[in-house]
Amino acid sequence: MIEVSLIGTGGTVPLPHRWLTSLLVKYKRKSVLIDCGEGTQISLKRLGWKPKSVDMLLLTHYHGDHVAGLPGILFSIANAQREEPLIIMGPPGLKEIIEGLTVIVPHLPYELKLIKLSDQETTTIDLADFRIKALPVDHAVSCLAYSIEIKRGRKFSPEKAIENQVPKTIWGLLQKGEEITLEEKQYTPEMVLGEERKGIKIAYCTDTRPIPEIIDFIKNADLFIGEGMYGSEDDLQKAIDHKHMLFSEAAQLAKDGAVDELWLTHFSPSLQEPEIYMEETQKIFENTKLGEDHLRKNIKFKRD
Amino acid sequence: MIEVSLIGTGGTVPLPHRWLTSLLVKYKRKSVLIDCGEGTQISLKRLGWKPKSVDMLLLTHYHGDHVAGLPGILFSIANAQREEPLIIMGPPGLKEIIEGLTVIVPHLPYELKLIKLSDQETTTIDLADFRIKALPVDHAVSCLAYSIEIKRGRKFSPEKAIENQVPKTIWGLLQKGEEITLEEKQYTPEMVLGEERKGIKIAYCTDTRPIPEIIDFIKNADLFIGEGMYGSEDDLQKAIDHKHMLFSEAAQLAKDGAVDELWLTHFSPSLQEPEIYMEETQKIFENTKLGEDHLRKNIKFKRD
Repeated sequence: MIEVSLIGTGGTVPLPHRWLTSLLVKYKRKSVLIDCGEGTQISLKRLGWKPKSVDMLLLTHYHGDHVAGLPGILFSIANAQREEPLIIMGPPGLKEIIEGLTVIVPHLPYELKLIKLSDQETTTIDLADFRIKALPVDHAVSCLAYSIEIKRGRKFSPEKAIENQVPKTIWGLLQKGEEITLEEKQYTPEMVLGEERKGIKIAYCTDTRPIPEIIDFIKNADLFIGEGMYGSEDDLQKAIDHKHMLFSEAAQLAKDGAVDELWLTHFSPSLQEPEIYMEETQKIFENTKLGEDHLRKNIKFKRD
Repeated sequence: MIEVSLIGTGGTVPLPHRWLTSLLVKYKRKSVLIDCGEGTQISLKRLGWKPKSVDMLLLTHYHGDHVAGLPGILFSIANAQREEPLIIMGPPGLKEIIEGLTVIVPHLPYELKLIKLSDQETTTIDLADFRIKALPVDHAVSCLAYSIEIKRGRKFSPEKAIENQVPKTIWGLLQKGEEITLEEKQYTPEMVLGEERKGIKIAYCTDTRPIPEIIDFIKNADLFIGEGMYGSEDDLQKAIDHKHMLFSEAAQLAKDGAVDELWLTHFSPSLQEPEIYMEETQKIFENTKLGEDHLRKNIKFKRD
């Protein structure tokens, strides 16, 4: 089971009633945080989060509303006595950004492992159980969309096990990936494993115009967290000028990408009542939810 | 009238129910902000503050809980279209800190005027109606206490005016500081001004051990905002080790400095119920208030 929590839903500047957009993804005691604007650590603490527990930090881009919380969270993590390395990844410029922002936290008790990602082509990185992909998108500065996939083991096939004359006592071990030698005969996982099974896929995409590459990138995601900077169609020119998305554009991507569910987030500070645009948005993609601070969801592997 | 607002009362890390320590002082449409930890701009907005309106930023030192909110607030001020310069002052290292933190807000539409203050001796700076003084204190890194004074014009003396045969029609102009020539006779402000009058003085002092120099520095302040990192006397060794103050130590400074009122602030995250130490603290200095987020006070010139 993967646990997804929307930490905030604001864009541009933090508001008293709306934290800046950020997402926490947890799986098997490992935590991935996407983006970290000012106040993200406070919103995380409201959720009961332990500063020590963040393992990877994925940055979409280096505008203040996505990274200004970085020195504060790094200090809080240090204050919580973390010693394990913390991985931070983001588009080109990462080293300079981290060097600049850590001027106020120069002596961390843990190592920062920086992974600079391409802003020209999709990168895939496997870390622990996570397969992380980063797609360059279309914003005013280099910006990445992320997907996080949890792969699932292949289905166990009792038919295949019987056909291959595998003793029942070692079925479980083979299923877990071990190779076993028994009475001079060798048994491999392949002898008991059947078809591939779909894992869990989360996609996160702010700030950008709705480029076609996003459709393939978010394809069949269980959950797509997409930017809804403006609700009204009248703001299209503003969205084009500042390289953001309308609710309707995020919904169209969700539809074309055939995702299960869309959460809208990254609302403009001028967007006081995002709910009034939901009816129109759901006409494009029905399973759209209006993001709200601390919206959570547990996603399980699908039964087959 | 001067308006003083405590923006937060926490130390070390921001908490969901306690913003980091910072103070806003307003006088005649000019605003001075002392310290700016993560979330300070959010707490300011809750007070109805306009990002454009901050004119001077005074930094005590460069630990994260006092400066990590800087890039965020600079961006919000830019976003509000400020064009007038913003003055930032702080102890040595200021330029490097600002250069580092502004890596995520490289193009501000207003100028940052940096004033590096000494960490060896007291500095006095007159800006608009404010007389700002900075005293080096005793913390783990270079750290300054600040006082802000609003000077008051000398009292008008009708006796002196009559004695100097000043025509009544120009009393007001002379009181305002103008020199007047009337029927070939010259009149100066000195001819109508009497004794000096006390202005308003605010003193702000975290993070430090209670060194004797502070007593003189806060002398006769109308309001002293002092650090109360720990409430219990059992935490004295911790206070000594980390260079912070106990409630009782701040109260003793308030008493020795003969201030009118003390507000305690900068509570340790471990200090869940600061109120339980107030009775003992008020035995040392009676007019002690427990600081709380958004505690405000208007201070007027005293009648004479």
